[in-house]
Amino acid sequence: MNKIKVGVLGATGAVGQRFAQLLTDHPYFDLVVLAASERSAGKSYQEATHWILPEPMPAHLAEMTVEAMTTDLDCQLLFSALPTESAREWESQYAAAGYGVFSNAGAHRMDSDVPLLIPEVNPDHLGLLAHQQKNRGWERGFVVTNPNCTSIPMTMALAPLHPLFGVETVIATSMQAVSGAGYPGVPSLDVIDNIIPFVAESEEIKMNQEPNKMLGRLTGGQVEPAGMNISAHCNRVPVSDGHLVTVSVSFKEKPSLGDIMEAWQTWRPLPQQMALPSAPQPPLVIRAEPNRPQPKLDRNSGAGMATSVGRLRPCEVLDVRFVALAHNTIRGAAGGSVLNAELMYAQGTLNGFKARAAKAAPNGK
Amino acid sequence: MNKIKVGVLGATGAVGQRFAQLLTDHPYFDLVVLAASERSAGKSYQEATHWILPEPMPAHLAEMTVEAMTTDLDCQLLFSALPTESAREWESQYAAAGYGVFSNAGAHRMDSDVPLLIPEVNPDHLGLLAHQQKNRGWERGFVVTNPNCTSIPMTMALAPLHPLFGVETVIATSMQAVSGAGYPGVPSLDVIDNIIPFVAESEEIKMNQEPNKMLGRLTGGQVEPAGMNISAHCNRVPVSDGHLVTVSVSFKEKPSLGDIMEAWQTWRPLPQQMALPSAPQPPLVIRAEPNRPQPKLDRNSGAGMATSVGRLRPCEVLDVRFVALAHNTIRGAAGGSVLNAELMYAQGTLNGFKARAAKAAPNGK
Amino acid sequence: MNKIKVGVLGATGAVGQRFAQLLTDHPYFDLVVLAASERSAGKSYQEATHWILPEPMPAHLAEMTVEAMTTDLDCQLLFSALPTESAREWESQYAAAGYGVFSNAGAHRMDSDVPLLIPEVNPDHLGLLAHQQKNRGWERGFVVTNPNCTSIPMTMALAPLHPLFGVETVIATSMQAVSGAGYPGVPSLDVIDNIIPFVAESEEIKMNQEPNKMLGRLTGGQVEPAGMNISAHCNRVPVSDGHLVTVSVSFKEKPSLGDIMEAWQTWRPLPQQMALPSAPQPPLVIRAEPNRPQPKLDRNSGAGMATSVGRLRPCEVLDVRFVALAHNTIRGAAGGSVLNAELMYAQGTLNGFKARAAKAAPNGK
Amino acid sequence: MNKIKVGVLGATGAVGQRFAQLLTDHPYFDLVVLAASERSAGKSYQEATHWILPEPMPAHLAEMTVEAMTTDLDCQLLFSALPTESAREWESQYAAAGYGVFSNAGAHRMDSDVPLLIPEVNPDHLGLLAHQQKNRGWERGFVVTNPNCTSIPMTMALAPLHPLFGVETVIATSMQAVSGAGYPGVPSLDVIDNIIPFVAESEEIKMNQEPNKMLGRLTGGQVEPAGMNISAHCNRVPVSDGHLVTVSVSFKEKPSLGDIMEAWQTWRPLPQQMALPSAPQPPLVIRAEPNRPQPKLDRNSGAGMATSVGRLRPCEVLDVRFVALAHNTIRGAAGGSVLNAELMYAQGTLNGFKARAAKAAPNGK
Repeated sequence: MNKIKVGVLGATGAVGQRFAQLLTDHPYFDLVVLAASERSAGKSYQEATHWILPEPMPAHLAEMTVEAMTTDLDCQLLFSALPTESAREWESQYAAAGYGVFSNAGAHRMDSDVPLLIPEVNPDHLGLLAHQQKNRGWERGFVVTNPNCTSIPMTMALAPLHPLFGVETVIATSMQAVSGAGYPGVPSLDVIDNIIPFVAESEEIKMNQEPNKMLGRLTGGQVEPAGMNISAHCNRVPVSDGHLVTVSVSFKEKPSLGDIMEAWQTWRPLPQQMALPSAPQPPLVIRAEPNRPQPKLDRNSGAGMATSVGRLRPCEVLDVRFVALAHNTIRGAAGGSVLNAELMYAQGTLNGFKARAAKAAPNGK
Repeated sequence: MNKIKVGVLGATGAVGQRFAQLLTDHPYFDLVVLAASERSAGKSYQEATHWILPEPMPAHLAEMTVEAMTTDLDCQLLFSALPTESAREWESQYAAAGYGVFSNAGAHRMDSDVPLLIPEVNPDHLGLLAHQQKNRGWERGFVVTNPNCTSIPMTMALAPLHPLFGVETVIATSMQAVSGAGYPGVPSLDVIDNIIPFVAESEEIKMNQEPNKMLGRLTGGQVEPAGMNISAHCNRVPVSDGHLVTVSVSFKEKPSLGDIMEAWQTWRPLPQQMALPSAPQPPLVIRAEPNRPQPKLDRNSGAGMATSVGRLRPCEVLDVRFVALAHNTIRGAAGGSVLNAELMYAQGTLNGFKARAAKAAPNGK
Repeated sequence: MNKIKVGVLGATGAVGQRFAQLLTDHPYFDLVVLAASERSAGKSYQEATHWILPEPMPAHLAEMTVEAMTTDLDCQLLFSALPTESAREWESQYAAAGYGVFSNAGAHRMDSDVPLLIPEVNPDHLGLLAHQQKNRGWERGFVVTNPNCTSIPMTMALAPLHPLFGVETVIATSMQAVSGAGYPGVPSLDVIDNIIPFVAESEEIKMNQEPNKMLGRLTGGQVEPAGMNISAHCNRVPVSDGHLVTVSVSFKEKPSLGDIMEAWQTWRPLPQQMALPSAPQPPLVIRAEPNRPQPKLDRNSGAGMATSVGRLRPCEVLDVRFVALAHNTIRGAAGGSVLNAELMYAQGTLNGFKARAAKAAPNGK
Repeated sequence: MNKIKVGVLGATGAVGQRFAQLLTDHPYFDLVVLAASERSAGKSYQEATHWILPEPMPAHLAEMTVEAMTTDLDCQLLFSALPTESAREWESQYAAAGYGVFSNAGAHRMDSDVPLLIPEVNPDHLGLLAHQQKNRGWERGFVVTNPNCTSIPMTMALAPLHPLFGVETVIATSMQAVSGAGYPGVPSLDVIDNIIPFVAESEEIKMNQEPNKMLGRLTGGQVEPAGMNISAHCNRVPVSDGHLVTVSVSFKEKPSLGDIMEAWQTWRPLPQQMALPSAPQPPLVIRAEPNRPQPKLDRNSGAGMATSVGRLRPCEVLDVRFVALAHNTIRGAAGGSVLNAELMYAQGTLNGFKARAAKAAPNGK
């Protein structure tokens, strides 16, 4: 009843599968389109997809026909799991054609008029959309992005601290799950009994840029970066899901460990206040055990949407250090974009799409 | 010909097995004693030992009888693979009884009159032994220790840099192999598809203290610590052997990346000059690939005695960052102690033991 | 309302934790006792337990006090996760004291008057209980066991076939998860990048004896073994949960592959007909893909209670071969015993315990 | 001196790298050609190759230029690591052009005039070469193949038994390392914490056909298959190297376990008698421990060329059962072909190539 029709772009890949799974039986959205490359178009989703999630493929998806990527898709919103190059080509076409695009791709994250959104962190950055539509001459369509999977746990942990204490510098080392590389992704010969101290040329750059944009201030139609100095060492580890990050931080104000703990414990950001369907309660799970969080035990916390933190203690070099963890293909990818869409839906920003749904597809059809 | 008779304490455990393996057919030492707890004493080494090394147990060891730990062992030097508590109890007894003890245990590493030795790094710290023997009233016996397995790769990488550029601060994150916990050690249920962001309460403290002692200056019979601020995040990963460490460093002098690379490339410390049997040539293997060193590919470099470094690049927060790796049970444990003994042998410091060997065991027997 | 009070013996171990988890908020049973060895008694369950399940410890369990093992436990039924020796000592004491004991231990499985029960396979074997109580002079108490975790997938797959086609011989090779060895169980050094072609001396014997007992006929107060010749090769593999078994079988009647497939598909045994709370619907999940079932993808099928089968094809030596999989700590251990108890509850056999619950604990207190 | 010039086809792939490694500094052969697809041709071997072996790339190979696949390669023998399709296209072209081809590919293994050779097992099958050359009109060139990596451990274990006791039926379950699938091969997402009960459609067929050909009798220019009924269950496991196989066997003559053990212990086939450079001494390593052989501990036995067997015991269904293991990319691939070539060299069959080497390349150049 009054759900908005949505589709997934790149629906057969690893992140596309998560989108399809998370949008099944969603209270706000009705998943009616699964789009992918020419190679898959025309096949049933079951045929076209090498399903890699431990939970079985939802039955009604199996029979849906995968569609080719055209701007005639019969839905209003699109969740994009496209690879970067393809996202660069298609996402603005879809926005221009009137679709709302929620993208997990890196293509537009750092565009100055595109919100890089974590609903708990910078919901006000949606204010960029008015500028985006004006800049690009888009009437209804838009692009909203979610951050890189490795930026998530660190940014979630810093979000309640930055406004209070002013984060100055961060040195972080990530231990990233293989699912972050998609499928087939990392060859097993490379990670059995091994660690690869490298993820991608751009990964460590994203870890510096993205948190600065997200924790930055929207002012005069622009996001002023937060000015944190972030140095990231990114590593691939033999773990299926869940990115773990060790973090050392210095602050302008010198908070005590107690101050930080309190800021974490009392953090109750917008999505939790609004009780959005995918918002984990609480957003940060604080582990008291000396050896947590761990990927296997904590990645599914809050249905994979919570960030777990632990081991808060003083740092000999900067001020404090801790460990943070989030599920990289749920909170760090598809689930993040779904939460972005839920926020806009609950705020009424998508009402125009609801109305149109009753009448016609984009492009007036 | 003129080999010194040696024994291994704690010979049946994980590190004890490595000692036994590395001392087999050694040009300086003749392995004649395998000692362990009461439980093992009297059995053949094969019976008493759950051999965990991939290479088969050397045939002549298999038939040797494990001896109980008494101060009547028929050898001059002892390599100690004892657990900390047991090391605290036994090592000084053995030294008092006239044995030279090369210990991998943590018990005496930070004692002010005990050398914490890496032959490439601080061979002059052997000067502490005169004070040690005087302080403790030991005539011939002594205790020399090697550092914690995780301190090794970082200290080896910093050793050629510190004298030239003055290391000020270090933030390091270790990804440590399960063999570092001995046998049975880490339960498989804890590390399959998982990372544990914790090793032991003391591990991160050792990572701060030990490099400071090793890179410190021996002056007036004391080691003045190097004064580096080191913050370590220690993690256990599903890797069998090889500790990987990501390192961010700041220096007093601000060396360029080229300066650092040159210092690494031209480093030719004492054990390499003396061509000690276990000294890897070169001591530091500099990997040019963007994704190296890796535990599986690089841990056996230099027969497990070399340290591999790579990914040297600027750090956004401190000055530079890089990755370092060493084999934790060879270079980081048994092999380290064997090299310590080789240094003393080649410098002639053990000549007294050679002479005595012809005549009698310690205790005048 | 009219739930029966139950307890767990050996509650802090790996299987004990599963019992505690599965009995939380159970419709028939009220978990009020967590008992374990002296070492744990008196502590809160949280303190006493190294919780190893990926799902968090249920909150109300955390605060419960672990009790010592006495025959004064304030409950009517006991689920036993005791090790074999301890089970041998305690289980009959508890039964003698009036408790109903559902045991996962191997101690009494092959006793001629003890049901070795899979509710889908041999519910009529509960008829042994009358003999058991008479033989042993027990009034109300009893012992019912569930089979070894590795016997489960094979027996579930053969159960619908044996009555129709007469299984004659079976050659099976198991690939068993490390959780089958409990905690700490298998050292990680033994299984990273490795397979161990051995589980325990008794494991392959159990694989022969247990299915023969379960598929045997109850007649005259005795179970006549099924007379199948079963040869099992048991292996430990680096998988956390889920035992996979390759099976080659010969039959008296020579069924076609279609006959077998039909027998599997139409199998609807008692627990499914009765819709017992833990009974998976369907009991056998038949995978059509050429590379399924797989532990990671299929172990949680039916909340870990279903058995998955696949790759049915002719065998060059015996008649047919296939692959079967079940979750070893759910269906193959704690969940199996819980289903046993559910069957007896739903059949009314436990009504006496309900009545007593209102009045007093066993021993008349 | 008097080495024969050799090349590797498909030199950049996983098996190609092993060939390059094993042929470096070989006493009989001089590795002078590294050939691969157009994509790699013209690059240095270092540039063209994603080197995946734990041992570093031999220095002199790094600088060699990869050549395109033409019949103008300046060498006499070729070791083929080509994929099946490519092998089908190229290997007979090379043989027709006068090269001796030692192939690891499956393309020609079952051709009736092509030896499928294990030097320890069926050296007399080289007698097929005369027929091969006659049939195909080849003057000097020939194709000799080595078996599938999974056939090796089973066939080596059966080879000394079949002539004495007559193998009738075999049921085998393989647990195959991921390196058997080449590189990139098996995605890590598929095998972390998992087993895949499927390798390839053809794998189980090869396990039936190849041992029957190898243990068959050469008579009248034909190999009469051994007539064994072999049923194989093939599985992929999270192990880097080393294929483990559980084997149940029945024999015509009913040997005791002692008879089998003696046959294994006293087996001293031709390559060991001739002391060929790559022949392991002994060919079968018999492990007495109850839990061996294991991939991690035993795959490198005999420099990766030995087959390890263990757990010999009675089988409840067939006669006996045991476990066998061999390194799949050394003995099961490149090393197998190198040993094939060594046999022919040592028997003098390659003398013609030596002579020609001094004068000219094939094709008269």
